[in-house]
Amino acid sequence: MKLYDGGRAPNPRRVTIFLAEKGIDIDIVPVDMGKLGHKSEEITARNPLQRLPVLELDDGTILTESVAICRYIEALHPEPNLFGKNPLETAQIEMWNRRMELNFLGSVTAVFRHTHPAMRDWEVPQVPEWGEANRSRAVDFLTLLDGELAERDYIAGDRFTIADITGIVGISFMKPAKIELPAHLQNVRRWHEAVSARPSVKG
Amino acid sequence: MKLYDGGRAPNPRRVTIFLAEKGIDIDIVPVDMGKLGHKSEEITARNPLQRLPVLELDDGTILTESVAICRYIEALHPEPNLFGKNPLETAQIEMWNRRMELNFLGSVTAVFRHTHPAMRDWEVPQVPEWGEANRSRAVDFLTLLDGELAERDYIAGDRFTIADITGIVGISFMKPAKIELPAHLQNVRRWHEAVSARPSVKG
Repeated sequence: MKLYDGGRAPNPRRVTIFLAEKGIDIDIVPVDMGKLGHKSEEITARNPLQRLPVLELDDGTILTESVAICRYIEALHPEPNLFGKNPLETAQIEMWNRRMELNFLGSVTAVFRHTHPAMRDWEVPQVPEWGEANRSRAVDFLTLLDGELAERDYIAGDRFTIADITGIVGISFMKPAKIELPAHLQNVRRWHEAVSARPSVKG
Repeated sequence: MKLYDGGRAPNPRRVTIFLAEKGIDIDIVPVDMGKLGHKSEEITARNPLQRLPVLELDDGTILTESVAICRYIEALHPEPNLFGKNPLETAQIEMWNRRMELNFLGSVTAVFRHTHPAMRDWEVPQVPEWGEANRSRAVDFLTLLDGELAERDYIAGDRFTIADITGIVGISFMKPAKIELPAHLQNVRRWHEAVSARPSVKG
């Protein structure tokens, strides 16, 4: 199988960190999103939504949506486990991964896409007021998360999971979105320092 | 276990349709979202994000996020299968469920929350321009879906899954969002007529 990868963009990066955590090497086809490679014929034929990443299996079957791709890889390579080992843990990890997506990564992305001048041709119409509204949403959610991380080491429990990966790419994407991580969120900072040291994230 | 339910709102409804498809009866605690019951102390203590539904297990463990709740119920009651029977099918269903959420249900919800006068105190700030931008996104996605449904009977393949449930609540929510289903989307209409006749949806 091969992965059409979008490099440093948040969703492609979720999958490449996931693969690195699993210790799996697969064929990577780099797509330059800066040159709108995700809107090329090559990608559009595989994903009419023109988004990355796209996983193509050897028989030509296509999978899109980062978390669907990760869940497929988890089923083929169960260890280390990143989605949960029993029904309750699996549900709690999905709950936290979705909370991180919907309340945090989604908000950071909205700030970037709706306020950054470089996004003017990508996000049409760009609605700066919507972008700005998401700035406080992202920080409000991190404040809630800080209270949770006072009680445990990782986002969904006592070990690293896909929910942490979503958190990592969200924190990184705050930089281009020009959102500061408030200094007083000590537990989020401690968590972020710890997960940033992982080879999958540094690499 | 018991489910704090928000009635006709899209996400609570996803879980109650899912339970009906499974043929499972669980204790339901109705919460009146019209009276802001989701912001009550009772719910906030269980879900600081003040959203419904909330599943409370007998030992007090809390699960939120509709799809996490549904996946937990699927693990306890595997039949009829609504999330996939093998790694590839499971990934394809997740892909379609997420496409339906991110491109369709999410857009319909944004139209409603950002343009409906009744939402002025719920969605602060209400950004009508963002609401309007989502109107065409929802219809564009349905147009793409119409092409897909020319080839198959259900959203993720040849049988009913959670992706259809997300589609059903999205179509229903177009009414309060004042989005019309274009008459020429014959395949979407055929699909919607078929799934609407299911006892889980009619009930």
